[in-house]
Amino acid sequence: MPPTDPPLDKGLPETGPRLLEDVSLPAAVLHETSLAHNLAWMQRFCDAHGASLAPHGKTSMAPALFRRQLAAGAWAITLATAPQCRAAFAHGVTRLLLANQLVGRANMAIVAELLTAGAECYVLVDSIANVRALGAFFGERGLRLPVLIELGVPGGRCGCRDRDQVMALAEAVAGEAALVLAGVEGYEGMVQAEAGRDPAPAVSAYAGALVATLRALDDAGRLPVARPLVTASGSAWHDLIAEAFRDAGLDERVRRVMRPGCYVTHDHGLYGEAQARLLARRPEFAEGLRPALEVVAQVQSLPEPGLAIVALGRRDVGGDRPPVPLRRYREGGSPTAPLGVDGWRVTRLMDQHAFVALPDGAEDVAVGDVVAFGISHPCLTFDKWRKLCRVSQDLEVLEVLATCF
Amino acid sequence: MPPTDPPLDKGLPETGPRLLEDVSLPAAVLHETSLAHNLAWMQRFCDAHGASLAPHGKTSMAPALFRRQLAAGAWAITLATAPQCRAAFAHGVTRLLLANQLVGRANMAIVAELLTAGAECYVLVDSIANVRALGAFFGERGLRLPVLIELGVPGGRCGCRDRDQVMALAEAVAGEAALVLAGVEGYEGMVQAEAGRDPAPAVSAYAGALVATLRALDDAGRLPVARPLVTASGSAWHDLIAEAFRDAGLDERVRRVMRPGCYVTHDHGLYGEAQARLLARRPEFAEGLRPALEVVAQVQSLPEPGLAIVALGRRDVGGDRPPVPLRRYREGGSPTAPLGVDGWRVTRLMDQHAFVALPDGAEDVAVGDVVAFGISHPCLTFDKWRKLCRVSQDLEVLEVLATCF
Repeated sequence: MPPTDPPLDKGLPETGPRLLEDVSLPAAVLHETSLAHNLAWMQRFCDAHGASLAPHGKTSMAPALFRRQLAAGAWAITLATAPQCRAAFAHGVTRLLLANQLVGRANMAIVAELLTAGAECYVLVDSIANVRALGAFFGERGLRLPVLIELGVPGGRCGCRDRDQVMALAEAVAGEAALVLAGVEGYEGMVQAEAGRDPAPAVSAYAGALVATLRALDDAGRLPVARPLVTASGSAWHDLIAEAFRDAGLDERVRRVMRPGCYVTHDHGLYGEAQARLLARRPEFAEGLRPALEVVAQVQSLPEPGLAIVALGRRDVGGDRPPVPLRRYREGGSPTAPLGVDGWRVTRLMDQHAFVALPDGAEDVAVGDVVAFGISHPCLTFDKWRKLCRVSQDLEVLEVLATCF
Repeated sequence: MPPTDPPLDKGLPETGPRLLEDVSLPAAVLHETSLAHNLAWMQRFCDAHGASLAPHGKTSMAPALFRRQLAAGAWAITLATAPQCRAAFAHGVTRLLLANQLVGRANMAIVAELLTAGAECYVLVDSIANVRALGAFFGERGLRLPVLIELGVPGGRCGCRDRDQVMALAEAVAGEAALVLAGVEGYEGMVQAEAGRDPAPAVSAYAGALVATLRALDDAGRLPVARPLVTASGSAWHDLIAEAFRDAGLDERVRRVMRPGCYVTHDHGLYGEAQARLLARRPEFAEGLRPALEVVAQVQSLPEPGLAIVALGRRDVGGDRPPVPLRRYREGGSPTAPLGVDGWRVTRLMDQHAFVALPDGAEDVAVGDVVAFGISHPCLTFDKWRKLCRVSQDLEVLEVLATCF
């Protein structure tokens, strides 16, 4: 069956392998149509809010997706660890935002190597001891490392808890010739609303606190860079962050950087729900992101009426929530006329098996049937796969993408 | 500091990298002393019970460990999927037990390749449709595939539910010239005890049912092989299975095959508890298995009194239970005089961060401190790592082991 979308990689043969015949299952699948939609959607969103996009690469750790994100207009790629930065740089990403404090001599050595090789790499700081360690390490090597002060929230994860800590930390950074303070960072995912309250106002207030912190640092002469950064945003509250940054009356020289990661594939769970809330807040969006990541597996056994065991487990899919059966195909059958999975429900996930409760009357199911599952939380599904298949609407494999976990 | 154990791999320099100085953390660590103990323990256990050991390789998917298991006396390696079989064979494992039904043409093609290349590979069957599909596929290629009938339990996972199904399936196998019935397989981990009851008697009864099934097939002339197999056993009930197999008065020609996987590293959680029950059942064992797998990570931030954020998350460690802080080191400090972690407790695990509640008075902790964590359920920690460090008691890295997930 010819692909309806032309293959995007010239190196691929015109008719690639077919998911329902030629690929060992289970397999993780990225749907090109939804992927392209999401890449364009988030870039358009950031452009419209005057923000730069530095997608969190830890979600996929797939250099082929980093390239797509940069080609769509992203300013940088965000990463969570020094080895992740090394992997991204090795695949051509030259501007890196390491959204964590850089801890440990072996990890510092990785970042030093990247700087030496010409990377632009920002790291976070929230501790004076760490600032001194970084200053000594990078100073000894004659390198200069840009740092962002992390502002956290009480009861949250990393980051300074108040203005006094921020100003003391900025003073410590100013005392290290090897460090240059380049801005302020936060992660609104740690903001907690009072029980039963909508967290949205607290998220917006937190974005405001990031901006106010940046201003205080600037007023104190602590930002010796041409374009200071203020950055936040996961994939659940990006509208509130972008709006608050946009409406804060910030100086033109401040670069506002958004760091969503999961948007690239979106999901059928957690982020699907977050988006429903976003679309309710922002009725002007006709459409949001589309789920692009599925895991496809075969019925392994039909041992009892009403029960299918599918060859898909916690080694294939994140375990936050059970995967959601979406469609079914007969092996080798038509990719455009899937069979139903109405009422199918994953009741238990073992390492390599899913228990699927079938509704009464699900008699046409066969061992070997191919079931496509939606997932929740892309990060914890991506990291189960060294390779994913990017597919056309006809389930032709357009590209095999490697991950670097 | 010189290693107390000599490096086991001749290719390694005499003084390897040191975990507390040279390795980017987080890292997964295998302690050689405990690993060697466990390899010997389980082989001795199987030998003493007259059973062959086919360790479940899906636990680690580390060919270097497969080689250690085979060198210690294992008869075969068990795997969960066709690609896992391919990976093991590519690393020199020539006798493979695929402990699942072989489903899908792409997966059948992998096993056909292995057979053609000289592998001995057993697969499970529980479905007549699958038997026919396998018969056709392997018949067309002029190959002969040994199969084991899986006997399940009502409400359990895969496998025939009663004797009639078994005999009908055996008849179907006999009708396929490309298939040869080589024995009976089960997995006692699916046996359910009545609420509040000790599952041990039900596990032993299930082992008895496997033996009785094998006898019934033999009596019916359905086992046209020199040495039929009866096989079961994960890492929680192996004593009961081995005992039941040993005491069943089986013919000498029946090979009794044990398939534990997690024993190789054991753990500080689920399997630690299973072993406490085993040692209570079998007081003659002076000592059991020892936990050999740890994940080592650094304190990333100390944002509030009583809270440490450690750079260790669900991407580094299985999420069944929170990892258990065991020891702490100052970075670059002594590997033989660890600092305390009394009262440290992981309260939350995010993708790349652990929240650790510290007890009152834990004032000597520093950003960068290295914490060793015990884990629960080795399978779901191994699969987070492409490489693990095998270390001496002095935390010298003896070998970097690759995994094939």
